[in-house]
Amino acid sequence: MTEKMEKYLEFMSELEKLKTVTRMNRTLDPGRQENSAEHSWHTALIAILMQGYLPEKTDINKVVKMILIHDIVEIDTGDTYLYDEEKRKQATLKEAIAAERLFSMLPEPHSSEFLNLWEEFEAVETLEARAAAALDSLQPLINHNVTGNGNPRGMTKTKVIEKKIFIRDVSPELWNLAEHLIENAVKKGLFSDE
Amino acid sequence: MTEKMEKYLEFMSELEKLKTVTRMNRTLDPGRQENSAEHSWHTALIAILMQGYLPEKTDINKVVKMILIHDIVEIDTGDTYLYDEEKRKQATLKEAIAAERLFSMLPEPHSSEFLNLWEEFEAVETLEARAAAALDSLQPLINHNVTGNGNPRGMTKTKVIEKKIFIRDVSPELWNLAEHLIENAVKKGLFSDE
Repeated sequence: MTEKMEKYLEFMSELEKLKTVTRMNRTLDPGRQENSAEHSWHTALIAILMQGYLPEKTDINKVVKMILIHDIVEIDTGDTYLYDEEKRKQATLKEAIAAERLFSMLPEPHSSEFLNLWEEFEAVETLEARAAAALDSLQPLINHNVTGNGNPRGMTKTKVIEKKIFIRDVSPELWNLAEHLIENAVKKGLFSDE
Repeated sequence: MTEKMEKYLEFMSELEKLKTVTRMNRTLDPGRQENSAEHSWHTALIAILMQGYLPEKTDINKVVKMILIHDIVEIDTGDTYLYDEEKRKQATLKEAIAAERLFSMLPEPHSSEFLNLWEEFEAVETLEARAAAALDSLQPLINHNVTGNGNPRGMTKTKVIEKKIFIRDVSPELWNLAEHLIENAVKKGLFSDE
């Protein structure tokens, strides 16, 4: 095996660890939380299906790639809960260090490509990064409506809207869908109506 | 919300179920088996990384899409163990019925597109379907080398090679990698050396 292939194998083996990084949301398996690998798969498929509601010039293949890659840094940092402001501030630097370590395991051109795609996603400026961020923000609403059970962290509708409202600027149709899901979650008692 | 978006939402919610479909292989979470959603994520990333070892004209975006979609039918049928010949024969018809039910939940053009992509994957004839099949067959070897523990089903090297040898016709480099992983698994006692 070439040295290059050895590097690829090491990285592809490292990816296994993302399946152990749990998120706040649940799955339909009793008691099991969703992990970042299955979240990424779900979000990538949502991207493909929602393509028609994204700005016309959006490169959907780049969005899908970005989504598949976006959480790899959590192998080192774990997932940071969206509503934990303090932890999110600290997470930024830690995630940049993780990106450096993880993507430098790869041979070029993939090392630079993955790092650049991840940095582009984090900056949320390009069409593709904004679409990926919107879809990444939509998926938990879909998941939560299917798997949610009560409101253990006392989440309010206002807080959720505050975090997700940027979806409206990416796509009014996706924001309609998000609003529908948020209202539905309130009806189910997953968020309080405040 | 439009009727079209309602259909999308129903399908995107249905996808949640794939996270409960377990495979024979394990994860790094103690006692937890891998599910088909995280397997699909892992395989899609492996496809992106191994692109340079696939035949030149392979449409990598189509391969990635195919991989993201290929196991959705297991929502209805469950995963069928590669080495269970009897069950695999019965699985073919059941999976076709599942594809019909699941993909017809989607509005057009996605309904036809997903069904066609899945059928193309199953037929293993086009460049993209052959690449997707090879990568789908490679991922468990990578996962198994990281997470495997003993040889509870008495798997032999010969049986594994018989099932995976088609990778060689897709890509000699991927077959080299597969061989390396199989030899490594024998050394670790995950397959017997027969």
